[in-house]
Order: sequence, then C-alpha cells, then structure tokens
Amino acid sequence: MEAAAQFFVESPDVVYGPEAIEAQYEYRTTRVSREGGVLKEANYYGSLTQAGTVSLGLDAEGQEVFVPFSALLPMVAPNDLVFDGWDISSLNLAEAMRRAKVLDWGLQEQLWPHMEALRPRPSVYIPEFIAANQSARADNLIPGSRAQQLEQIRRDIRDFRSSAGLDKVIVLWTANTERFCEVIPGLNDTAENLLRTIELGLEVSPSTLFAVASILEGCAFLNGSPQNTLVPGALELAWQRRVFVGGDDFKSGQTKVKSVLVDFLIGSGLKTMSIVSYNHLGNNDGENLSAPLQFRSKEVSKSNVVDDMVQSNPVLYTPGEEPDHCVVIKYVPYVGDSKRALDEYTSELMLGGTNTLVLHNTCEDSLLAAPIMLDLALLTELCQRVSFCTDVDPEPQTFHPVLSLLSFLFKAPLVPPGSPVVNALFRQRSCIENILRACVGLPPQNHMLLEHKMERPGPSLKRVGPVAATYPVLNNKGPVPAATNGCTGDANGHPQVEEPPMPTT
Amino acid sequence: MEAAAQFFVESPDVVYGPEAIEAQYEYRTTRVSREGGVLKEANYYGSLTQAGTVSLGLDAEGQEVFVPFSALLPMVAPNDLVFDGWDISSLNLAEAMRRAKVLDWGLQEQLWPHMEALRPRPSVYIPEFIAANQSARADNLIPGSRAQQLEQIRRDIRDFRSSAGLDKVIVLWTANTERFCEVIPGLNDTAENLLRTIELGLEVSPSTLFAVASILEGCAFLNGSPQNTLVPGALELAWQRRVFVGGDDFKSGQTKVKSVLVDFLIGSGLKTMSIVSYNHLGNNDGENLSAPLQFRSKEVSKSNVVDDMVQSNPVLYTPGEEPDHCVVIKYVPYVGDSKRALDEYTSELMLGGTNTLVLHNTCEDSLLAAPIMLDLALLTELCQRVSFCTDVDPEPQTFHPVLSLLSFLFKAPLVPPGSPVVNALFRQRSCIENILRACVGLPPQNHMLLEHKMERPGPSLKRVGPVAATYPVLNNKGPVPAATNGCTGDANGHPQVEEPPMPTT
Amino acid sequence: MEAAAQFFVESPDVVYGPEAIEAQYEYRTTRVSREGGVLKEANYYGSLTQAGTVSLGLDAEGQEVFVPFSALLPMVAPNDLVFDGWDISSLNLAEAMRRAKVLDWGLQEQLWPHMEALRPRPSVYIPEFIAANQSARADNLIPGSRAQQLEQIRRDIRDFRSSAGLDKVIVLWTANTERFCEVIPGLNDTAENLLRTIELGLEVSPSTLFAVASILEGCAFLNGSPQNTLVPGALELAWQRRVFVGGDDFKSGQTKVKSVLVDFLIGSGLKTMSIVSYNHLGNNDGENLSAPLQFRSKEVSKSNVVDDMVQSNPVLYTPGEEPDHCVVIKYVPYVGDSKRALDEYTSELMLGGTNTLVLHNTCEDSLLAAPIMLDLALLTELCQRVSFCTDVDPEPQTFHPVLSLLSFLFKAPLVPPGSPVVNALFRQRSCIENILRACVGLPPQNHMLLEHKMERPGPSLKRVGPVAATYPVLNNKGPVPAATNGCTGDANGHPQVEEPPMPTT
Amino acid sequence: MEAAAQFFVESPDVVYGPEAIEAQYEYRTTRVSREGGVLKEANYYGSLTQAGTVSLGLDAEGQEVFVPFSALLPMVAPNDLVFDGWDISSLNLAEAMRRAKVLDWGLQEQLWPHMEALRPRPSVYIPEFIAANQSARADNLIPGSRAQQLEQIRRDIRDFRSSAGLDKVIVLWTANTERFCEVIPGLNDTAENLLRTIELGLEVSPSTLFAVASILEGCAFLNGSPQNTLVPGALELAWQRRVFVGGDDFKSGQTKVKSVLVDFLIGSGLKTMSIVSYNHLGNNDGENLSAPLQFRSKEVSKSNVVDDMVQSNPVLYTPGEEPDHCVVIKYVPYVGDSKRALDEYTSELMLGGTNTLVLHNTCEDSLLAAPIMLDLALLTELCQRVSFCTDVDPEPQTFHPVLSLLSFLFKAPLVPPGSPVVNALFRQRSCIENILRACVGLPPQNHMLLEHKMERPGPSLKRVGPVAATYPVLNNKGPVPAATNGCTGDANGHPQVEEPPMPTT
Repeated sequence: MEAAAQFFVESPDVVYGPEAIEAQYEYRTTRVSREGGVLKEANYYGSLTQAGTVSLGLDAEGQEVFVPFSALLPMVAPNDLVFDGWDISSLNLAEAMRRAKVLDWGLQEQLWPHMEALRPRPSVYIPEFIAANQSARADNLIPGSRAQQLEQIRRDIRDFRSSAGLDKVIVLWTANTERFCEVIPGLNDTAENLLRTIELGLEVSPSTLFAVASILEGCAFLNGSPQNTLVPGALELAWQRRVFVGGDDFKSGQTKVKSVLVDFLIGSGLKTMSIVSYNHLGNNDGENLSAPLQFRSKEVSKSNVVDDMVQSNPVLYTPGEEPDHCVVIKYVPYVGDSKRALDEYTSELMLGGTNTLVLHNTCEDSLLAAPIMLDLALLTELCQRVSFCTDVDPEPQTFHPVLSLLSFLFKAPLVPPGSPVVNALFRQRSCIENILRACVGLPPQNHMLLEHKMERPGPSLKRVGPVAATYPVLNNKGPVPAATNGCTGDANGHPQVEEPPMPTT
Repeated sequence: MEAAAQFFVESPDVVYGPEAIEAQYEYRTTRVSREGGVLKEANYYGSLTQAGTVSLGLDAEGQEVFVPFSALLPMVAPNDLVFDGWDISSLNLAEAMRRAKVLDWGLQEQLWPHMEALRPRPSVYIPEFIAANQSARADNLIPGSRAQQLEQIRRDIRDFRSSAGLDKVIVLWTANTERFCEVIPGLNDTAENLLRTIELGLEVSPSTLFAVASILEGCAFLNGSPQNTLVPGALELAWQRRVFVGGDDFKSGQTKVKSVLVDFLIGSGLKTMSIVSYNHLGNNDGENLSAPLQFRSKEVSKSNVVDDMVQSNPVLYTPGEEPDHCVVIKYVPYVGDSKRALDEYTSELMLGGTNTLVLHNTCEDSLLAAPIMLDLALLTELCQRVSFCTDVDPEPQTFHPVLSLLSFLFKAPLVPPGSPVVNALFRQRSCIENILRACVGLPPQNHMLLEHKMERPGPSLKRVGPVAATYPVLNNKGPVPAATNGCTGDANGHPQVEEPPMPTT
Repeated sequence: MEAAAQFFVESPDVVYGPEAIEAQYEYRTTRVSREGGVLKEANYYGSLTQAGTVSLGLDAEGQEVFVPFSALLPMVAPNDLVFDGWDISSLNLAEAMRRAKVLDWGLQEQLWPHMEALRPRPSVYIPEFIAANQSARADNLIPGSRAQQLEQIRRDIRDFRSSAGLDKVIVLWTANTERFCEVIPGLNDTAENLLRTIELGLEVSPSTLFAVASILEGCAFLNGSPQNTLVPGALELAWQRRVFVGGDDFKSGQTKVKSVLVDFLIGSGLKTMSIVSYNHLGNNDGENLSAPLQFRSKEVSKSNVVDDMVQSNPVLYTPGEEPDHCVVIKYVPYVGDSKRALDEYTSELMLGGTNTLVLHNTCEDSLLAAPIMLDLALLTELCQRVSFCTDVDPEPQTFHPVLSLLSFLFKAPLVPPGSPVVNALFRQRSCIENILRACVGLPPQNHMLLEHKMERPGPSLKRVGPVAATYPVLNNKGPVPAATNGCTGDANGHPQVEEPPMPTT
Repeated sequence: MEAAAQFFVESPDVVYGPEAIEAQYEYRTTRVSREGGVLKEANYYGSLTQAGTVSLGLDAEGQEVFVPFSALLPMVAPNDLVFDGWDISSLNLAEAMRRAKVLDWGLQEQLWPHMEALRPRPSVYIPEFIAANQSARADNLIPGSRAQQLEQIRRDIRDFRSSAGLDKVIVLWTANTERFCEVIPGLNDTAENLLRTIELGLEVSPSTLFAVASILEGCAFLNGSPQNTLVPGALELAWQRRVFVGGDDFKSGQTKVKSVLVDFLIGSGLKTMSIVSYNHLGNNDGENLSAPLQFRSKEVSKSNVVDDMVQSNPVLYTPGEEPDHCVVIKYVPYVGDSKRALDEYTSELMLGGTNTLVLHNTCEDSLLAAPIMLDLALLTELCQRVSFCTDVDPEPQTFHPVLSLLSFLFKAPLVPPGSPVVNALFRQRSCIENILRACVGLPPQNHMLLEHKMERPGPSLKRVGPVAATYPVLNNKGPVPAATNGCTGDANGHPQVEEPPMPTT
C-alpha cells in the first residue's frame, strides 16, 4: 500500500510515525438542556434569521436540538423595525403595490390602509444610469446640484431617525439596476476625490450618492443591485468612517440554486463541463434590464458565482480551466414578478458518461428578495454590536467595514481586499452560523457526531437494550402491502436499529 | 429591542451580562506551507476520495489550499485493489459488459481482453427474493443446503485472499434488490438464531447469507441495495465479531440531489410543501424492480431521505408535520442504463408565494454507482486502521461496527442504535471531512475565514496597499462592450477590491 | 429512377400512362366576402366552439378568413344554457366552490351570491364503486332501491325540463371516477338485461344508472370519467332509443398534449421509442384516484392514446411493435387543482441519434375541463339537429348514437362498432371542422392554397407589381441593429416578397 | 336560441331556410384494395418522404390503409442520388466527419473508407458575411473576381452533371449562416442589377452567388440557412428562367415543435400569452452564430413562426395583439452537435387560470437536418415533373418558381408574392399530402370518417353482430389486476364495442 500523503501537519499534537499517525485532538461538542421554551410560529419564510435554524448540539437522548437563528443571539425583532425610503416614483406604497401585481388581490385589499399612508421621499434620477424606459416613472425628484441632493439625502436620514425615534438607521439600495460606473483616477478612486466629484457635479451614480450620504451619516449601506455602487472612493470612505458596507445583488433565485448545485457536483467529484442559465421576468426590474448596459451589470454579477467552486478542485480542473458558462436574462412582460429560471448543467462521469441536470424554477422575484432584505438589516445591526479581541491583539476590534459575513445573501459578495470570495452557499451559511455560535462561545459545527460513532460512547450517551425488545423498528422494512396511489411520505423503513447487546463472553 | 435568547451556554468561557454576552473563544484555523507536491490527474470522476477535495486552510497569501481527499490520510490507491465476485449469471465480465450496454462500444472493445478472463464465482439464487424475470439469468449457482452455500462463500473469500495475496477483503452487495425480509423472533433476531436458521435451511435472503459469511470471515460487509440485508441477527453478529457493516443502497442520483436541495430549501427558511420524485430506468436493475415487492424495497429506501431536514426546522414544521412526498420508479426498457429522474419541489414563500422547482436529471446509473463502490471500499479500509481514545476512556477503541461515517454514500444510512440519521448531503460530507481531518489533528472546517473579516487581521495576513495601485480590478465592473452571443464565462466583474489605506489622521 | 408506386387509383379521372399519370381533379376552395360582422370578444378560453376558429377560405386579397367555430352553424349560445345537477355532497355550489379552491378568492367573492342558491339534487352513492375516502362527502343521497333511484333521477330530469322551460336536456357525468364494472352476460350485456338488473337491485354503477335514466328520458348522455359507464346494455339501449351517447374521460391536459406530440413525431418520420407520463394532482378527483381500482380506470383510459398513431406508420413500426409507454398518476394534496404533468418522449433519429423531449405542464385541472364540458353540450345539441341522406340511401338519417364526432374532447373516445379509433388531436379537430363545414356545403379544408402555388394563378388572384415598389418588405431582412434584451417578437424578417415582373422579352 | 351565423355560403347547393340550412354535399372518400405489396423497411428516420406515411382511405373492413409518402407518386429513391459539393474547408469528408463529432465512433470507422474519397470543391469565402472565427477553416477557395467565381461554380455544376451522368442537379445551401444582406436599388433589386453587381465585383453574398449560378444552370436552388440569400434580383432571375427556388432555414428542432404546439394551443382556444425559446449548441454552426450579425439572421428567422397561428384566431387576439415572444441562441462548446432547446409557453385559461408548458428538447442538430435535406431534394425533383391545367386556363402550367409547397421543411418559408405564409406544421403537412394526392386524383384528406358516423352506413361497410358475440373487448375495461411496476403500454381498455343489434320491433 502506497502512502499518498502530500502534506504534513506541523503540530505538537500530531506525531507521524512509521506505522501510524498519532494525533491528539480536542473534540468539542455541545450538550443541551431544554428550558421548555416554545418556538413561536414565524411567518418569514425565506428568511435565514427568522425561519432558518441552527443545531445547538445533542440533548440527553443524543438527539439534536435546533433553534432559530434569531434565538442564537439577541437580534432585533422584525416587528421593531421602522421603514422609510426614497423612490423616483411618487406613488404611495398602496398604489405601488397595486402596480407591482406581486401580492394576491385579497392580501392587497387587507394591506391597502396600512400602505396608503406611506409615501416615498423624492429621490435622485440621473437618466444615463438606468434604462430609458424608466423615465416615465421619474416624477418624484430631489432638485438641485449633486451636492444639494447629497445634503438632502443626509437630511432625510437624520429626519427619519429623529422623527421615528430610532437607535440606528441602515440603508439598503433596492432600486433600479444601474449601468456600471467607470472607475477613473481623480474621479472616484479615493474618498477625497469622490467627495470632490460630488461637490463639482461630475459623474456619480445615484446609488453611489446614497452610499456616500449613508456613510457620512454613519449608517451602514447595503447594495442589493448588481452595479458597482461601492466604487473605491466609497469603500475608502467607509473605511475612514468605520461604517459597514455590503453587497452586491441580492442572491435570491437562480444564482442561489447554482451556488448549491455546482458546489454539490464538484464536491461530489463530478466534473461540471457546462452551465447554461436562462431567465426571464416581467416586472419593472426586468423592463429596466431590457436595456443592454443595465443587463450587462446583471450578467456580470451572475457570472462569477462558480469560480470559487471550480478553483476548489484542482483534481478536476487544471489551472485556468473552467466550465462553459452562459447567463441570459430576458424581459417577458407577461410573467410579471414570477421570474422563471431555466438551467442546464452537464457533468462528466467516469468511463465516458455524462450527467445532464435540467431545472425549471418558478421564483417569485420580490417574495424571495424580501426576506433577504430583512436578514441583511438584522445581521448588519447585530454585527454592529459585536466586538472581539485576539491573543495577539488584545485591543477590542470589530469586523472589517466590508462586511463579508453577508456573502450568503449576495450574488457577487463584496469582500475585504485579498480575501477569498466564497460563493458556495453551504460554506456561506456555515460561516454565519459558526461566527454567531462563536459569539456565544459555541464551537463550530463539525457534523461529526462522534459520540454516535464510537464503539464505547461513554456514560453520557445511553444506548438502549436489551436484545429482546430491540428490533421492532426493523419491521418497518418487513413485508409491506403494495403501495396505494397516494404519497408514500408516511412509509418508513429506515432501520433505526437498537443496540445489540454486548457479548457476554 | 427585545432579546429573543431562548437558551444559555453553560460554560466558564461565556459570561452573560446585562449589556453584553462575553465569550472567550478558541478560534482554530490552519496555515499551510506548500511542499511543491504535484497533483496527479485522476480519472475517477464521481469518487469523493479520488476526485473530491478538502480545504486544508489558508496559505501565506491568505488563499485556500485544497488537496484531494485521498491525500489527507494514507489511503489505498484504487490501482492496488484486486477484484473478484459472485454472480448468478455465468457470463464472463466481457460478455456481461456487452449485455449491460453501459459503456461505449469503442471502450468496450479496448476493455474486452481485460474483462474476458474474469468469470464470476457461482452465487446463491433463492427465487422468492428477487423478481421472477431474473430466473433466466440464474445459471451459475452454488449447490447444496443453505449451510453448504454459506460454507462455500466463506471458502471463496479465503481462497481469494490467499490466491491473490491480499491483506484484507471487503465485500460489497451490488446484486439484485431483494424483497424485504420479515424480522421474526427466533428466526433472525439474534446472531444465534440467525446462524441456526441457516443451519436448518429456514428462510434467509441471499444477501444476508453473504453478510454472515463475510462477518464470519472478518471481512467488512457493505450493502448497496435497499433491502434489509442486515437483519438484527446480522448486526449482532457484526457487533460480536467487531466487523464493520454499512448500508443501505448506494446514493447516486435522484436521492443524492434531493438530499442537497431539500437541505438547501429548508436551510434557507423556505417551507417545502411537496416533493414528487419520479424515475425510470431500463437496465436489469429496473427489470428486477418492476416486480412489486422488489420495488417496495426501493421505494421505502428512498422515502425517508428528507426526514432529518424536516425535523431540523421546528420553525417551519410543527411536530409530525411533513411535506407531501411521492417516489415512483418505473421500468422503461428503452432508456437502458440511462436512468431518468424527474422531480418537482414546491415551497411556500412569505406573503402567500410559492416556489416551484422542476428537475430532469439524466443519470447514468452504473457510472454514478461505480465510484461510490470504490469510495466505500477505500473509506472502510481506512476506518479499519483508525483507533482513538478519549479523556474519560483512555483505552483505545475503534469505530462502532455499524459504520455510519459512510452515510454520504447511502440512500438509507445504517447507523448505530439511538444515533440520529443524517441524510443532508453537505452535513454528511462535513462529517467525513472533519473526521479525516481529526485523524491528522486538523480542527474541523469552520468556513469562518475570520482572518479576512477582522478590522485588524494581524501580522500573518498582509493586505496590499497603498491606494494609488489598489483598484484596478474594479475596472472589471466598468463599462464593458455588449456581450457577444457566446458564453460569458470569461466575463468578470467581481470587485476583488484592494485594501484602502489606513487613514492618516 | 425506379417507380415505387404500390397502388393504383381506380377512377375514370386518372390515367396511368407510360410517361406520366394524368389526373382530372376537382379542386374546391372557397371565396369569402365579408359582411362586416364584428366578432364579439368571448371569454371562454379553452372552448373549441367559443374560442376556436375555422378558416372559411380566401378573401379577394387572397388572405384567409377565420370565424369562430360557433359561427359556422347556428349553435346554442352558452348564456342560453341552464344548469342543474346531482351531487352526493349536499354543499351548495358556493360552499363547494370554496372547498374546491380552484378560483381566486376575489372571483369567488363575486360569484358567491350567484352560486349560493344552487343546491345539488341528491345523488346515488354505492361505496364499492368509488374510493373509501369519499364516504365523508356522501350526505345527500337518493334513498330506496336501485329501481327507485332510477325513477327519481328520471323525475329530476323531467322536473328540471318543465320547471326551467327547456327544449332539451343533456346529461354529463362529471362526478367521481368509478372502478371498472365487469361485463357479465345476463347482467349488463343487453338493454333488457341491464334494465332487469336495475329492477332486481343487482350490481350496477351509479354512472350507468344515470346513463340509463338519461337515455330513457331521451336525453343525450356523455361520460366525462374514465370508467366503462356505457356497458353494452347501455349502448344497446341508446341504439334502441336513438339517443346520443358519448365518452369517455375529458381530454384536457397531459393526454391532449400527447395526442399532439406523438402525432407530430411519428408524422415527421421519427420513431418514438418510449413515452413516460407522470402526473400528480391534489384535488378531490386525485384523492379518489388514490385508491387502486379507481386509479386503474384512469390508467387504462390514458394508455391507448398513441395506438392509432403507431399503427398509422408501418414504415416505422412493424406489426405488434409499439413504444414503451408508462402512465403514472399520484395524489399530492398540496398542489390541489393545479395538476402537474411530467412527460418524457424519446425518439430514434437517422444514423443512431436520439431525440429526447421532456415536458413539465402545469394544468389547471378544472379550468381546462370546464370549456370541454361546454363544448360537449353544444356540439351534442347541434348534432341532434343534423340529418342527411346519401345518393344510395335517400331516406334522411342522423348520426350513429355513439357520437364519435366528439372524439376531440375525450381521452378514450367511444366509437361505433368496427370504427377506427382516432386519438390524433389534429385529425379529430379536422373531423369536427369538416363535418360542420359540410353542413353548410363547404368542402373540406385541404390546406393546399393552390391559387398561390400556380405559375399563373388566374384572374381572381391579383399579384402586386411592378418591380420598383415591390421589395420593401425585404428590408426586414436587411441589416438590423443588435437585439436589445427584450422580446424579439416585434422583429420581423420574413420575406413577404412581392411578385417579380413578368419578363418583357 | 339565438343564431350566431355571421356568413352565408353562396352556392346553389346550399339553401338557407327558416328552419334549417339544407346543403348538398359531395362526400368523397377512397376505398382501397390491397395488392399485397410489402413495405421495405427504410432507415431514414426523420424523413417525411421516406419514413412518413399517408392514409389512402379505408379498406373493405373499414380500416385505414397507410402507405409511405414515397409510394404515393414515383419519386427518386434516395439511393439513386449522387452527391457532390463545395466547402471553404479542404478536409475530405472522412476528416470532416471526425471533426464534427456527430456520429458514434464505431459508425465513423465503418463509414471512413466511403467518405475518405469525397473531397469538397473549392468554395467562395467573403469574410464580412460570416463570423471571424470561421477564417481558420477557409483554406479551399475559388480564386479570382466575383465573375470568375460565378463562372467556376457554373463549371462545377456542369462538370458534376456530365461526369456523374446525371439527369438533374439540385443545389442546397447548407453552409454557414451569413449576415443579412441589404437590399439596395441598383445593386440587387432586379435580376439585371444583380448580374451587373457580380460582373462589377460589388457586394454580393457567397450564398447568393451560388443561387445565381444554380439558376443560370437551370438547377433548383434551396437555402437551408436563415439569411436572405434570395434577394429580389435572385427571385426575378428564378422567375425569368422558370427555375425553382425555396427557403429559408431548415425547420428541424425547436421551431418545428413550436409550430406544432402553438397551433395546438391556439387551435384549442387557449390564449397563449408568452413564448420563450432558449437554445444552445456547440457545433461549428453555433460558433459561427456566436457573432452578433449571424445570430441576428437566425433570430429573425425563428421569430415569425407563430404569426399565422395568432392571426388565425381573431377571437383570442385583437388585431395587432400578439404573445410575448423571445428567441435566444447561445454557443456552448461542450454540448457539441447535441443542440438543446428550452421553451416555456404560458397560456390563459377561463376564469383566470394559466397553463404553463415547459420543454427541454435534446435535438441532434445534424441528424434532424439530414433527412430534411433529403426530402427537399426529392420533393423538388418531383415538383419538376408535375404540370397541370385548370378549367379557365387550359394551357399546362407548373408550380410557381418560389416553391412554397416546401414550407413544411423551412423555418421561414419563402412564398410567392401575396401568398399567406403558413407555419403551422400540420397545415403544412396537409398541404404536401393533399397536393400529392391530387396528382394521383385522390381527394383531399378530410378525416371525417363519415361511413363510421352514420346511423346506416350503407352496404359497403359491414358492422359485426350479433349481440351474443359482441362485447368481449369490453372486458378490457373490466376489473384488472393492480398494475405491476413496468410499463402499462400493453394495458388496454378502450371499448372497441361491437354493433348492438338492430331493434327488431
């Protein structure tokens, strides 16, 4: 037998011997005692913090205990949020809701009185950044120069904070996709240059204007659209002011599934050779994207999502090799907000085979995005309350202003300089989960369940016996009547076998 | 702001104060220095051990370093394996290969001379366990009583071991799906009863006969088909002899994808309401499954795969609540080994929306199963060389005979009594990864990348500066020419932003 | 060049010569002059008679003129229909509408007052014919013996006719799918035996009881479910009474598409090798079908749909050869009335190729069936007013009581004895179209457009000239700007070329 | 009851009375007597002429008789064709076959010796008409001026005809898709101008050059690519020389299915609201189409396919109204010649419902196109031998030079000026079928089967009786055992009911 070891762990805990590798290992796991807390049924499907759960560890019976993400640390409750915003369209939110045709009519009727009073503040419209077809909506604008517009946005933020009596304000860009903005030395490459550009009325995108206003007001800014709102000057400004920024582009539908499936395929050792992703939608986002430059922003945002997974497997892909990858977005008015994604993945198997996986995904664009917006606000707020120090640097510090912990929620995650970009969804989720766990001193989730894999699990884990009573569950796999035509979800057969007795001899 | 904390961590490292939770946390990560090892191109697509990779940690540039699973610990190389086996059909493997129509004709021609010499040993045929349509194949049988057949199988194993000069033999059941076998006290509920049953010639399935023979010869036995081969008596025998057993049913296609997608959906907080899984195939496995009792074994094996994910999210599912779940398998001769899976997942969104995900998956049944067989043998062999002790139990011990570490590779994983069954694929993969890492003293993968998330990353991680040279990558998101009609895989735009300078004031 | 002619047309109009076949041919086409009638927008999508159209012929400009089917002959207008019915459930139609969850809530609210007053008459419940899960609904039953029940149904029909002042009554079975009913000599094989069976209270299905009642009342009876309601005795009774009967099983979704696609594939010379049809639904029909015997009725009804197309092509299929064909129906409560069909068709191409066509079809079960019920009633009523005589049989006659003209609307069309069963949808549509055309003396649609294919089209068809003004349309195929990202439906490029001038030399 | 008749048939055969419409109608059908001809198994799957069939009529038992299209009239047998051609690439056909990777390797090996000797003649390469990525292939070119090239092509045709001893030559353009060519007065708008343009070396596309050469040699020319090869000048030239031309763009895959499905949907009265058609391919055609201008030609060719169907239904669509319609083509090298089409059709139902139909179609691009090329040559050749005269114009004439009878085979059919463009596939097929039938004096297919629909079918059609022996087939719908898990294709249940006896009273 040939040893294939190509690396060595340099650690006092690991000894490489001629016959064996001996390692000392601190296996950390968590034991949970319930306090009888009742989980309140939430209605935020699609929200990681509100409807996602985390395993805390095993209870006394060796069964896992799960709690909502929101229970892991003290988070703001969604109902404690207060909303305000800007829109280039003057429709009140009830009318906008009707125009958007996202919610069922019955629900709209119930919401109408609550939405009617909400009117967006005037916003900034710079025609060259969005599609020409948006011009008809632009009837609610902040007048004046760029500098005056910036000042007005800042006033709006302050006004909102004081009039609503808020502790904090977090700003999300959920408006139109803009075309990319050229990064030009002297124009927007440093904080100073960017501020001067605004002062002089030179080219700046509306979203960057909002980002700058937010940062100057000390409010975290998150970019839910694909364009490069956070130009270098804006990033430097965030760094100077120690304000969190995050982006880009909510990861809600096709790209989210892709960041799961490609991770799965490559992680299973299958060589994915082509990924073709078509999608079409008919809402206003789609109409705006029907213009080539805006589409291009989106296309780029969706293009790099598999890079980290491809690079993670040098067995399958030689350096520079990557799968064919197409992304197409079309505007099809009839489907409205019910975005459709059609994907085809082909992967090579052993011995010349091919696996072809085809998906049709009916996404409700806005309904998938809404809980992501919620999560972004709640997680960002939480991060603002986290500080930590390390052995080598005892001074408390906080997260880097580019808040890459939010990667799970973005198609093209912004990360600090030099940091690897992780798109793989399960890795992104583990990241949030383990950092939140760390904040309460829980070790990272390791999924090892070593207690259950040992020959002698130790006193804390009682296995049931004795023999005579042990195997009833196996009857589940005994002869069963022919299935009816209904679902078989109730059929069971997994052998939850009981412990065989210790041999007495 | 209302605190939603519903549990407390009892640890000296965690202090709950009125204003904050303070936790001491040991953040463990790994730094890698390369030794210039060259990865040898493997051709085992679909094999976790041969074509899957693991992240070791970050290199000096803060970039992740990946190695093949097989390089993590000294594993047997596939080329060092020697194959032998039994079949109720007497065709030599070249003829069987031609009959199976799995490989391209050109490849078959190349393999023919190598396969022609391989003839399966006679096997055990008990008509009531498999479909009647298999009878025509049954021309290569071990004669005699059950006890004589058991003895012959044991002789075969010993003969193979000695004539091929092997260190170890591992037995996999990759033959026909059998009907379930009723577990009857006195018949097969204990090791003693099972052995007596064989002695007396009472009812025992062929696969159980092979399992018993393997265990008695001290060879690990793995069940790649869905039926309950490992009846309680077989499990007790494995426990008595400290021989590894694993099962059931190779997880290769539809179920594997399901154990990814449902984990993703529920893990994202979406409430999956119905899962409908159709599949059809035309190979001999399919023909055998066209008989109701054999189909039933398969159907049951595929039914429970989402249970652990549903139970992991008590926010979405009240106790006892579960999605509608259908599994259908049909025999369609024309498609041959090119198994087709059609799935539909519907999930509820916020505000009354529904997400519908439809898949058509062209799996090559045998080509997806082959690398799984390989992984099973290699991982089982590796586990046979692992022993460990714990603080409270300093005596070395090994894994539990029911080798649940193999869950990643099975549709209906066998686990030790009382152990939670994990079907979620990424959890299963993490389990293998982290246990293998532990064997070389590496901490579990935590995906936190905390070095890159800190305001002050410390001396080990150099961020690049200064400003003037920092933002070139952002140009990727600058104005780009309209896409051509080809793939956009080469388009790039993710802002790998460089570090903004530290403010000088 | 070898002549492959394998048949001869025996006709005075055709002369086979050594060099040529000379045929006299009466080419019949239709010229239309518009009378300025305005088509009223109908809202009966899915109805052949109300929303389907027929080409009448060419107008003076050589363009086709289309009219609704309903305008071809004097048909009853949908608004002139009056509805009544029986149900084993006593819910009024408003409550039933709410229970069915088919219509949007807003629409239900509008319809509620109109539906609330409609209460179904008590019906006949014989438990062994439908699934046990229907028993809870059965609270609205006609008491008494079978003979008394038959008499009550007849009274109901007479009562409805007189109280609503109707000319005619037509009865449709749209209730539960029943299990098949065994045809037993002496029991239900002749009209006389069937009537005696009812008199004696022997086995008869509810639907057959309604059929007999309808026929005895002189009302046409149409069976929208798959079971064999129209047993031989019922057919003989219909024949004796000269009452129209039709069936079986509304053709609304998956089977309808199949009867198009297979006709297309085989008609194009592709050899379809396997057809796999899965579907699931969650309405009460689905729940009833979850019982094996009821499912079996449905399965059988869906199985034969491709037979006529396969038999139509002896080039592709040798006698007895047919594609693999699977039909699966499952009950999945969550999807409700939104029935899902998943199909896979594989066909062989020249030179060893394979075409694979996969469909996912979201059908709204009831909304597709509703217009079919309407069409059935209207077409049957129309047929009751058609009589004709032939040259050899000058006595007026009507259609055969088994009204096979309705085949377009049924999955398993009932036809007169000895008649070929046509399932191919376009053939079925042509049949209705041409018979209706014949009733107004129009020749059958031949799609030849011979006027437009002649070198010299004759005086009636003016082609436009001259050269100078002729080719503007071709500019549509000239250089065009790169497509935007929107739909290209407006793009045009087909060369509607104008006539080149006759050469003057 | 309100009469909805909106038109009147002006015919002496039709009398509109107050109570009824009386029509005399000549019902024409065909009786067939078999001559025992044996159909020879053909291997031209996908060819209408070779593998498609036509119903001749009913035999003495009332059953339909089908013959291959090729047997309807004396057609050239495929084996009597001789092939020659031009290519800008000098590879011999064996090498080209290997490069194309369309055929299985085993088949390639068998064909190699037959293909090796075939070398394409030098062709014409004008870089601005095709994608730049084709330049590497262009190593086999006709030198000289456009006029010299034209002359060389003509010489090639004459040389081929004489050296191979042929009766006729037909030229098909199956080469690269070119960009559209601007139609400019004075340049290519008349035959004279086009010939002068070539003489002067002004802009003309390669395909137009071949078209002109073919026409001047009296050879029919058919354009299998989407661009506007047949500019007005070329059409006029064809008219002057009475040479057949046809086009554009082989209808092989996605568009063919679309021309079936949309016809079906609209023909069933469903209002199709959006059609989204994505496709990708990786062969050289795909690579050429990855250039924007060439893609544009293709996109336009695929765009208009539903126009005639939409316009045929003024009940569903008001004038000018049409569905959203998207067509996308992408180049994805990995899939090679195995073109993939993904389509989504949404249609509105009654009462607010929506039907969504999703397709994934794996087309083998070349294998679907090959039989179409064959059909084009054979049908064109046949048309060259057809002449006819009419009552009003006794002088024999032939078809119009723009051979619209070929529409079935083209995505964007060329038709004579003023002629309606028919894209609906079943209409196109009927057209060919009925014209070919007419050539042998058969009336058009009417699908009425009136013999089988009459109460008294007349002496020619014997219905079987009597009662006692009549109903065995109904047992097919009797109780059946629960289905096995195999295919149900053999299950039968359609009640091929026998004739009930005539009532004796």
